[in-house]
Parts: sequence; C-alpha cells; structure tokens
Amino acid sequence: MQLYDLAGADGDDRFSPYCWRARLALAHKQFDIETVPWRYHEKDAIAPSGQGRVPVLVDGDRWVADSWAIACYLEDRYPDRPSLFGGGAGKAYCRYFSLLGDAHAAALFPILARDVLDHVHADDRAYFRETREARLGKTLEAAQADRDTSIDAFRASLAPLRNTLAEQPFLGGASATYADYAVFGQFQWGRCVSAAPLLTIDDPVYAWRDRLLDAFAGLARNVPHSEP
Amino acid sequence: MQLYDLAGADGDDRFSPYCWRARLALAHKQFDIETVPWRYHEKDAIAPSGQGRVPVLVDGDRWVADSWAIACYLEDRYPDRPSLFGGGAGKAYCRYFSLLGDAHAAALFPILARDVLDHVHADDRAYFRETREARLGKTLEAAQADRDTSIDAFRASLAPLRNTLAEQPFLGGASATYADYAVFGQFQWGRCVSAAPLLTIDDPVYAWRDRLLDAFAGLARNVPHSEP
Repeated sequence: MQLYDLAGADGDDRFSPYCWRARLALAHKQFDIETVPWRYHEKDAIAPSGQGRVPVLVDGDRWVADSWAIACYLEDRYPDRPSLFGGGAGKAYCRYFSLLGDAHAAALFPILARDVLDHVHADDRAYFRETREARLGKTLEAAQADRDTSIDAFRASLAPLRNTLAEQPFLGGASATYADYAVFGQFQWGRCVSAAPLLTIDDPVYAWRDRLLDAFAGLARNVPHSEP
Repeated sequence: MQLYDLAGADGDDRFSPYCWRARLALAHKQFDIETVPWRYHEKDAIAPSGQGRVPVLVDGDRWVADSWAIACYLEDRYPDRPSLFGGGAGKAYCRYFSLLGDAHAAALFPILARDVLDHVHADDRAYFRETREARLGKTLEAAQADRDTSIDAFRASLAPLRNTLAEQPFLGGASATYADYAVFGQFQWGRCVSAAPLLTIDDPVYAWRDRLLDAFAGLARNVPHSEP
C-alpha cells in the first residue's frame, strides 16, 4: 500500500491537512504504509486516480483519491481491523466532522497561505501563489496581515469542539476515531507550516491536539514543523 | 412519565429549545408522555429535581433535570427501545452535537430574546427582561435592532451542518438521532417565538428542519408558532 503525500522543498516536510487525515486513518487501521512524496506539478504520477490532488491511496490495483473516500474505502475493505468511524451511526457523524475540518481549512487558509509558500517546492511556488491569490482575492501577504483578527474569529468558532474536549478525551469518546483525525489534520497543517498561535496552551483543544500528536508512537509529532 | 415543559402566556405555547430536545428524545424512545406546562416563577414545582430550570423528567420516583442528562438517562434506563445515540461511539459524538446546539442557542439569543418576551407569561415578564438584559449587556430592543447582521453570521456558521445535510437526510444518517434533535431544538425555538428568517427556504438545513417537523406525526409542527 502506498500513499501519495504532499511534500515540500524538503521531502520530509509533509503539511497537507487532507494527507494527515489519511495517514492517521491508515495508522488507526494498523497499516504501516509507504508514503510517496508528491509535489503539485507531479500530476502525471497520480493520473491513474482520475484527478490531480493528494492524498491518493494505492492498494494493489485500486487507486483511491480524496481523504473521505480513502477513509470509507479502508472501513469497507478492511472491516475486521479497528473501526475508524466508531460503529453504529458513526459514519454519518464522521461525515459531519470531515466537513467541519473542511470549514476549519477554509478559515485557516488566509492565515496560513503565506507561510505555506515558504514550504512548497521551488517548482511549485509560482503555481501556488497564482492559484491561491485567485482564491483569496488578495495577495498572500495581504491575507497574512489580517492574521490576528482571523485567529481570534477562528478560536471563537471552536466553542463546541472546546466544550466537548473539556469533558471527554476525544470526539470519539475514550479513544480517537476518524472524527478526531478529520479535525486534527488542520491543526497539524498549522503546526507544520507556521509559527502562528492558532490555540492557546490552556485550551482543551490544545491538550487534545497533544494527545493526537502522541498517537501511533508520535507519528504526527516527529515531523518537521515550524511551530516553536 | 411526566415532562415539565416551559410554557408561555398561552399554556399551549411551548418554545424552549432544551425542552424540545427532551420531547423529541422521548418520542424517539416511543414514550407518549404527559407534558406539564411550567413557567419561570414556578420553581417550587420542580424543587425535587434539585435545581430551578426545565426540562425536568419525572419517571416514577426519579427526577432528572437537563436535556443532556435526560437523553443519557433514557438511553441507559431503556436500552431495549430504539437507540437515541445511534450505537457505538454515538454517545460521544452526540455530546458534541448537544454542545453545538448550545452554541447555536447562544448565537440566536440576541436575535430572539425580544420576541420571546412577547410569549412569556405575564408573571414572568419582569424576571425575563431583567435576567436576559443582564446577560446581553443591552436592552432586548437594542439586541433586536442588530438582528440582520446576527442572522447573516449565524447562517454562515452553519456551513458544516449545511454541507452534511446536503449529502444525507439527517446528522444520524438515514434516520434521525439525538444529534438531530439537539440541533433542531434551536430552530424550533426560533420558529415558535419569532418571524425572523433564520434560514432561507433553499437551504438544506431548512429541508432537514422540515423533515424533523414531520417526524412523530408532526409532534413539533403542530404547535403554536410565530413563523409565517
């Protein structure tokens, strides 16, 4: 099994929030997989997936793109391994948390985009600036200048997550499920690319993030990161 | 079994978001219960619950206060009836949705508070205005004057809910669970007390609300309401 994983100029620099969701889902399913570093300009390498973005999972002759599709594939194909969604109606609930993660990615994008530029491969930088500035409707630098205001709004939006994690260790309860990985991906993205303080250290969300950094023998902790 | 349920000047006027969560939870568990209309000044009637707010469930000699505690009580005490949380890790996920409902209640409170005043019993009005204006830090009328801006921000905050409900009928998947009831309660509150357009009719959240209004033979639909 192989996972095409967004990489920076340094091949060990892996910061895509969606790839982190897939990596933790694979670890939860007890797969010790090979990640293949991939850059934005390497569309050909993942062409068999029928699209041009990562994560892409290759399992034998099956190519699966999209973090949510990968999670569903793993759960359907390997039902005897630890449950990713937590059983029962868990898949339906996890779809919400996947989309909550997407909303966080959208909220963090203007905060982090300029920092991401410093991490992408030299051959990707012009592509990254052009596509991302079109999405932002402003320069990466202008978006970064509003960072403090954007961080305040982001932190305020976390109230239901914060209040839940003040009462239980994980969204999935006593142990983590895909709900946790889908939301964690964005915090890992921030940690990898930026020194921006997305969370204060007294936030229950920060303590939860720490628990996930420790999971799977520190899989997510022991990687290059820009957070102090 | 009896449920103490917040009532307005008209005893049939029931608008508490937390009481609606409990009523739908009871219906899901297939209990056809008696609701007891209760007003804010009737603290003595619920004194055996050890606190002064509704919903309060009385089941034989057991008094249970708080909508989340009632949901947990029903699931624990009546495990052979339809599952309220959807099994597996569902209880942990539903705790998040309960707290998401609380965040919605906080966001809707300034929008709806002045309208609520028109519904509360004459003997409760001075109490309601005094306690709610202290909480708002402004008059009910001043909060209402900012309504359109508050509604825009509320609608924007619903993106993960909206995107989920565009893909599946309920948060619980093919059928509703407590996650749905916990979030629905606030929309029912708005519908009962106010003509404010919290949702546009083309919003997937609106269609979901309609499905819940139809649930249990129109339990939530067929009540006095202020929405046109």
